[in-house]
Amino acid sequence: LISRLPHIGTTIFSRMSSLAAQHGAVNLGQGFPDFACDPKLIDQVTIAMREGYNQYPTGMGALELRQAIVDKIQRIYGHRYDVNAEVTVTPGATEALTTAILCSVHPGDEVIVIEPAYDSYLPAIELAGGVPVLVQMQLDAHGGFSVPWARVEAAVTPRTRMIIINTPHNPTGSVLRAADMAALGDIVRDTDILILSDEVYEHMVYDGQRHESMCRYPELAERSFVVSSFGKTYHVTGWKVGYVAAPAMMTLEFRKIHQYNVFSVNTPMQHGIASYMEDPAPYTGLPAFYQRKRDLFRKGLEGSRFELLPADGTYFQCVRYDRISAQSEAQFAEWLTSEIKVAAIPVSAFYRDGKDSGIVRFCFAKKDETLALALERLARV
Amino acid sequence: LISRLPHIGTTIFSRMSSLAAQHGAVNLGQGFPDFACDPKLIDQVTIAMREGYNQYPTGMGALELRQAIVDKIQRIYGHRYDVNAEVTVTPGATEALTTAILCSVHPGDEVIVIEPAYDSYLPAIELAGGVPVLVQMQLDAHGGFSVPWARVEAAVTPRTRMIIINTPHNPTGSVLRAADMAALGDIVRDTDILILSDEVYEHMVYDGQRHESMCRYPELAERSFVVSSFGKTYHVTGWKVGYVAAPAMMTLEFRKIHQYNVFSVNTPMQHGIASYMEDPAPYTGLPAFYQRKRDLFRKGLEGSRFELLPADGTYFQCVRYDRISAQSEAQFAEWLTSEIKVAAIPVSAFYRDGKDSGIVRFCFAKKDETLALALERLARV
Ligand SMILES: CSCCC(=O)C(=O)O
Ligand SMILES: CSCCC(=O)C(=O)O
Repeated sequence: LISRLPHIGTTIFSRMSSLAAQHGAVNLGQGFPDFACDPKLIDQVTIAMREGYNQYPTGMGALELRQAIVDKIQRIYGHRYDVNAEVTVTPGATEALTTAILCSVHPGDEVIVIEPAYDSYLPAIELAGGVPVLVQMQLDAHGGFSVPWARVEAAVTPRTRMIIINTPHNPTGSVLRAADMAALGDIVRDTDILILSDEVYEHMVYDGQRHESMCRYPELAERSFVVSSFGKTYHVTGWKVGYVAAPAMMTLEFRKIHQYNVFSVNTPMQHGIASYMEDPAPYTGLPAFYQRKRDLFRKGLEGSRFELLPADGTYFQCVRYDRISAQSEAQFAEWLTSEIKVAAIPVSAFYRDGKDSGIVRFCFAKKDETLALALERLARV
Repeated sequence: LISRLPHIGTTIFSRMSSLAAQHGAVNLGQGFPDFACDPKLIDQVTIAMREGYNQYPTGMGALELRQAIVDKIQRIYGHRYDVNAEVTVTPGATEALTTAILCSVHPGDEVIVIEPAYDSYLPAIELAGGVPVLVQMQLDAHGGFSVPWARVEAAVTPRTRMIIINTPHNPTGSVLRAADMAALGDIVRDTDILILSDEVYEHMVYDGQRHESMCRYPELAERSFVVSSFGKTYHVTGWKVGYVAAPAMMTLEFRKIHQYNVFSVNTPMQHGIASYMEDPAPYTGLPAFYQRKRDLFRKGLEGSRFELLPADGTYFQCVRYDRISAQSEAQFAEWLTSEIKVAAIPVSAFYRDGKDSGIVRFCFAKKDETLALALERLARV
C-alpha cells in the first residue's frame, strides 16, 4: 500500500487530547465543551428514535432540518436559500469542507488558503489533486491577526479555483469585518473563483460585533459554499451534524460526491435538532454565554507571563508566551500538558511550514470550575 | 464549476424512494426495514446521551465499540484484530468503502469490480483517479449468479491495485462459498493486490450456510479492508454507524483520509451500540428472522408471472419478469411503482453499461403486513 498522504500523521487535536489524557491534564487543547448540552435537545433525539425516525433520511438531509436551517439563515443574514436545491445536511462540518473541495477542485487547480488554517483544508486539497497557494495572515503590534487582502489578490492566477475563508477564525479568534468582505468581493468579482466559507463559529462573535457571513452579501453568496456545525452551536461536538448551503448548481455537484461519500446523516439527530431549532434562544444567547467565559479566562491570565491576544470570536484564546528557552510552540504545548497539566494547541500546527511565533491556543468552552483549575495551574508558569 | 463526476446523477435508491413516495407505492426498492428496531437499543443511546457522551470520540471510534467489534469478529470468524491499530468506526459503510478506495488507489491504478456492483464503488474509484476493470457475474440456467474467477484472474494486470468483493451480494442475494475463497486466494497470492470486502449483510445468510468473511482466511485477511454496518444488522439504517477492519498498515492509511473526511462518528450511537452488542442474540437470530420473511415473500410470488431467482443472503429477492413488451428493467420498475404501487430496483442500475436481463430487485426487510400488501398488489401483474 503506497500512501496517498505520505507526510500526514494524526491530527494535532487527537494527539494533544491523548497526551492530555495520559498526563491527567485539563484539556484546553482540542475544541469541545466539557459541560452538558441542554437536556431538551437530548429529549428531542430520544423522541425521534421512539417515533421511529431510524431509517435512511434522504441524502440531502431531513426536510424538517433543512427547513429550520433555511429559516435561520434568512432570519439572521437575510438570504433565502431554496430548501430542496441549496442546503445539504452533512455528518459534521469536516465532511462538508472536504466534499466541497473534492467536488470543485480538479487536478492542477489552485486553491488559496489563508494561514494559520484549520488542518483539514490542505489534505483535502491534496486528495483532490489541487495545488494549495498559501497566504499568511499578518500579525499587528497588539497581536491581532488580519488578512492581507493585497497579498490574496496577488496570489490569484488564471488557475485559481477557490478561496477558503474562515470567520470567526480558528485558531486566532479573529473575525472578518465589512471592509474585509468588500476586499474579498473586489478580488472575486468578474472571476469564476468559488469561495469555501467555514463559519462553524458563526454564533460566537463578541463585544457586540456581528458575524460577517457570506450569506449577507449576494455577490459572495452566489459563489460560496457556506459551512456550519450544530456540534459547536449546541455543545454536542460528538453528534457530528453540520450543513453546507450553496447555490443550486454548486449543491448539485456537492451532492454527487456526498451521496457516495457518506450517503446521508444520522436520522434521529437530524430530527432532534430540527425540533430544537424552533427556539432561537440557544444560539442567540451564545455570544453572551461564551463572552463571559472568555472574560473569565482572560481575567485569570492578567498579570501572568502570558500575553493575551485579541479574541473577538470562536471559543479559543491565543496567548504568546515568553521565549525563555527558545522552546518551539509544539515543545511548549507538550510541556504545558505534561508538567503544568493544562493542554493547549501550538498555532504552528496550522501552518504548512510550521511557522512559529511563540503562540499557543486555549479552548475556553469549559465549565467555570475547569477554567478555574486551569488558571490555577497556569499561574505556576 | 466544472463537474468532477459529469455523468453521475442521483443514486437509484434515492430516485426510486422519491418515486415510491410520490405514487404512494409500497417501497420494496431502497434497502431498509420498515419495522421498529429493538427499543433496548434506543434506550442505550438515550442513556449514553444522558451520561454525557456527546463530545468528539477519538477519530478511530469509541474504545468500547471497537472492543465489541473485535470480540464479535473473533467469536464468529476466529480472527483477532488489534483493537487500537486495526479497527475504525465509520459513519456507515459507504464512508468506509469510499475512504478505503481513496487511501489505496492512486491515479492510474486499476481496480477490479465485479458486476452487478453496488453503486458507490465506481464513483469512488473515479474520484481517486483509478481505472475500474469490470468483470460481470455469470448467470446460470436457474438464475443463480456466480463469480467467474477465471475471468477475474484474466483481468489482473501489473497495475491492479485492488479487487472489490461483496458477499452476501447486493443486488443478487448470492453468497460466496469456500471454493470461491480458494479461487480468490489463488489469484492474489504473491501479488500486492488489496481486497476491499463489503460484508454489510454478513448476518443475513440463509439455509444453514455460513458467511465467508475475509476474516476467516488469514491470507485474505492480511490484505483486506473488511467493511460492515450496524444499520443493516440492527435495523437502524439511518444511524449511519459502520466499521472497517484491516491490518495495521492499511488502517493507518485509512485513518489519514478518514480523519480529514469526517474526523469521527456520532458518539452516543457508538456507545449505545457498544452496550447493545453485549448480547449476541440480535445478530445470531438474524438468519432465522429474515429467512422467514424471505420464504413468506417467495411463497407469495409462487405461481405469479415472476420467476424467483435464488436468494441465499442479503434481504433482497431478485425476480425475472416476462419481457412481454420489451420493457427495460428501469421502465418496468417505474411502471411497477406508479401503476402496481410496489417499488423495486432495476438490476441494470448496478452495471456501468446498463446490462439488462429483465430482472428487478425487491427488499423483503419489511413487516409481514407490508409484504402481504405488496404481494397482493404484485399478484395483479
Ligand atoms: C475535529 S477535532 C478539532 C476541533 C476543532 O475544531 C479544534 O480544536 O480546532
Ligand atoms: C445507501 S441507500 C441504499 C441501501 C442499499 O444498500 C440498497 O438498497 O442497496
